[in-house]
Amino acid sequence: MPDTAQPISARALAALLQQGALAPDALARQTLAAIAAAEPALQAFTCVLDADTAAAQARQLQGPLAGLPVAVKDIFDTRDLPTAYGSPAIYPPRPAGSDAALVALLRRAGALVIGKSSTTEFAYLHPTATTNPRAPGRTPGGSSSGSAAAVAAGLVPLAVGTQTGGSVVRPAAYCGVVGYKPTAGWLPTGGLKCFSWSLDTVGLFSRDVADMAWFAEALTGRALARPAAPSADRLVVGVPTDFPWEGLSANASAAIAHGCRALAAAGIEVRPCTLPAWAATGFDDHAVVQGHEAWRCLDWEFDYHAAQLSPVLRDYLASTRRITPAAYEAAQLRTLQARADAQAWLAGVDALLTPSAPDEPPPGLGSTGHSSFNRLWTLLGLPCINVPGAVGDHGAPMGLQLIAAAGADARLLQVAQRLEQALAAAAGPAPSSL
Amino acid sequence: MPDTAQPISARALAALLQQGALAPDALARQTLAAIAAAEPALQAFTCVLDADTAAAQARQLQGPLAGLPVAVKDIFDTRDLPTAYGSPAIYPPRPAGSDAALVALLRRAGALVIGKSSTTEFAYLHPTATTNPRAPGRTPGGSSSGSAAAVAAGLVPLAVGTQTGGSVVRPAAYCGVVGYKPTAGWLPTGGLKCFSWSLDTVGLFSRDVADMAWFAEALTGRALARPAAPSADRLVVGVPTDFPWEGLSANASAAIAHGCRALAAAGIEVRPCTLPAWAATGFDDHAVVQGHEAWRCLDWEFDYHAAQLSPVLRDYLASTRRITPAAYEAAQLRTLQARADAQAWLAGVDALLTPSAPDEPPPGLGSTGHSSFNRLWTLLGLPCINVPGAVGDHGAPMGLQLIAAAGADARLLQVAQRLEQALAAAAGPAPSSL
Repeated sequence: MPDTAQPISARALAALLQQGALAPDALARQTLAAIAAAEPALQAFTCVLDADTAAAQARQLQGPLAGLPVAVKDIFDTRDLPTAYGSPAIYPPRPAGSDAALVALLRRAGALVIGKSSTTEFAYLHPTATTNPRAPGRTPGGSSSGSAAAVAAGLVPLAVGTQTGGSVVRPAAYCGVVGYKPTAGWLPTGGLKCFSWSLDTVGLFSRDVADMAWFAEALTGRALARPAAPSADRLVVGVPTDFPWEGLSANASAAIAHGCRALAAAGIEVRPCTLPAWAATGFDDHAVVQGHEAWRCLDWEFDYHAAQLSPVLRDYLASTRRITPAAYEAAQLRTLQARADAQAWLAGVDALLTPSAPDEPPPGLGSTGHSSFNRLWTLLGLPCINVPGAVGDHGAPMGLQLIAAAGADARLLQVAQRLEQALAAAAGPAPSSL
Repeated sequence: MPDTAQPISARALAALLQQGALAPDALARQTLAAIAAAEPALQAFTCVLDADTAAAQARQLQGPLAGLPVAVKDIFDTRDLPTAYGSPAIYPPRPAGSDAALVALLRRAGALVIGKSSTTEFAYLHPTATTNPRAPGRTPGGSSSGSAAAVAAGLVPLAVGTQTGGSVVRPAAYCGVVGYKPTAGWLPTGGLKCFSWSLDTVGLFSRDVADMAWFAEALTGRALARPAAPSADRLVVGVPTDFPWEGLSANASAAIAHGCRALAAAGIEVRPCTLPAWAATGFDDHAVVQGHEAWRCLDWEFDYHAAQLSPVLRDYLASTRRITPAAYEAAQLRTLQARADAQAWLAGVDALLTPSAPDEPPPGLGSTGHSSFNRLWTLLGLPCINVPGAVGDHGAPMGLQLIAAAGADARLLQVAQRLEQALAAAAGPAPSSL
């Protein structure tokens, strides 16, 4: 029986389970033991199933993910595990009245929801105590901090998070794992604590792209896992020469250059491009839309529990209350147009390549880093994925982000897998991965 | 002190409260007494505050709606009142962990959330026991059954509901009150039980259009209550000559003719028009979008509590699971285009006039009627309002629906008020209303 404290792919685990070489209840117990051993340092979970419950559940599971342990960000309601939305002072941890729709969807696919992973307070910026297993002393990113760290530590093969700005792609980049935000609307948001009804999107974590495509296929019902027949046309990846919100750091420039070389070596055309005007306005409009909606989504918490909010969130809400409805509506109208424009513009490439984050994960746990390279795509509802494989000058992970047109998730995952392979080839022989 | 068991306008009540002619705690107690007297026959509430709590809360309230009792559909979470989403078998009534965003917004505006109004099971079709105070023996409509009936019975001046198909405009029509669904995204959906993340929209109920504009201004922060300066241009209302989903019943034809005469008498131009192709495809696409999302939103309930679902909902979910992701995405893409097309097409009129419902409310309580005249506009996110004032051949209410372009809510409310006045003038002297 494999030592599941070592990273092992979800598909390999599923194969072992299916062959009977690994019993689902044994896997559940091993996983919990590994979590218990890692948690004092990692702090990625807010709670886990007790071992007997997990083993009993694991034996009953059916479906494509049958028996695979999955960590779920504690921004989703769960019926059997305490839920606190990263704010135990306001929401004393207790089981919710029902599972969030996404959690029930996981169970429907056979997943074992083994524990709740740490989230920043209401998925905003106030950090958790979670550490980064791939970059000691640095933030794992947020807001899906625990999900990214748990996968990076090899405790679970798969995890779930949410992204309103950059809360999936950024922690995936910082922790050196795959983080994927499908096209907006593909996965249900019912039963997750709302921060922004226009922007909150479910996202997924895995160790590699093939696991991700397989996981996403099981949850979304879309054909994503089977590699498409090789296209007669050459794949084309656009690389913006410039970003309206900030210049590229030395680490980000180096990561992009590394990614471009890997793509070219993989036979993919790298095409420099200039982001259209909607990129600059969209970046600013994201702040308007999120701020206006957060002031309304967290009204109960602000009005009745202000003292129990972190200063960073309280100050944010106090400032976003000044965003006028007129400014919000103008931003929403521009966004509608930008979505149509982006869809047409992205038809010219198979994916866009950008940094996943501005730089290596910041040192310390005081900040979860910055979502500047993620917000625009979240606003536009476009599928995005972090492909790990580059490093910064301190040796910490630098992720590469691929973005595609809405609905073009299958092609996005295909490009991501090619990039991942090329990065691995550039880095030398891959470590044995079962 | 007025007898508040008689319908009294929200603005008049607010004026009395502000002048000190009516104490907020006394109003709260009177309202609860009126509800207690009416409930055995009406069945509009699932729970109310106890009188001392209500009186104590009422004395503390501040804001534009200070002290006004409001009924909230029991599809919204409330911290102090039991919540059951119309399914007490699956959700044993108990206070939620927090207020839904909309509920906190009501309190922020000073409203007294005095009770939870009956909703059909998860806001779908399985009826409540609520009766129709304006049409004895007939359904009040649904899914916001209790909110419409409570306002119609004069128990509360204002109420809140939700609309995914026609769950605000239809019960308002059947109960002879004003029901208004603002432009999609104007009011927060966090903390309401999700049925369809693309379609669920908050809606409001009141006795007349002036109350509605005032209520909606207090909640949305938009300038809706002050009548715009009379336009130099004549108002134009488009009236479709035909509907792709069904023919007009005799009662609906008569109501539209009545509405057209009233508009013309009010100096508003009535312009016959033909609905574009997006109306037919949009009607069908609504079913696809709602069905695909409901199957995912109610997965926990279906997978773990199927025996406690009504047959109508269980059968619906069992059928909508067959809607493919491809069909859903095609419908969503068409909807995106239809929204843009509708926005351009509606720029040619100030509002569109249609029936609010196919006919008078059906007899009995076995069905909540049909949302065929509402679904398209909900899909497109357009503001809609039911203006009462017509009657069918059995003397039951027939509502008229006005629809405007997204964001044109102020103009919509202006047209609605003109129509309401013209209908009242056509009906003879208005009953004394205070």
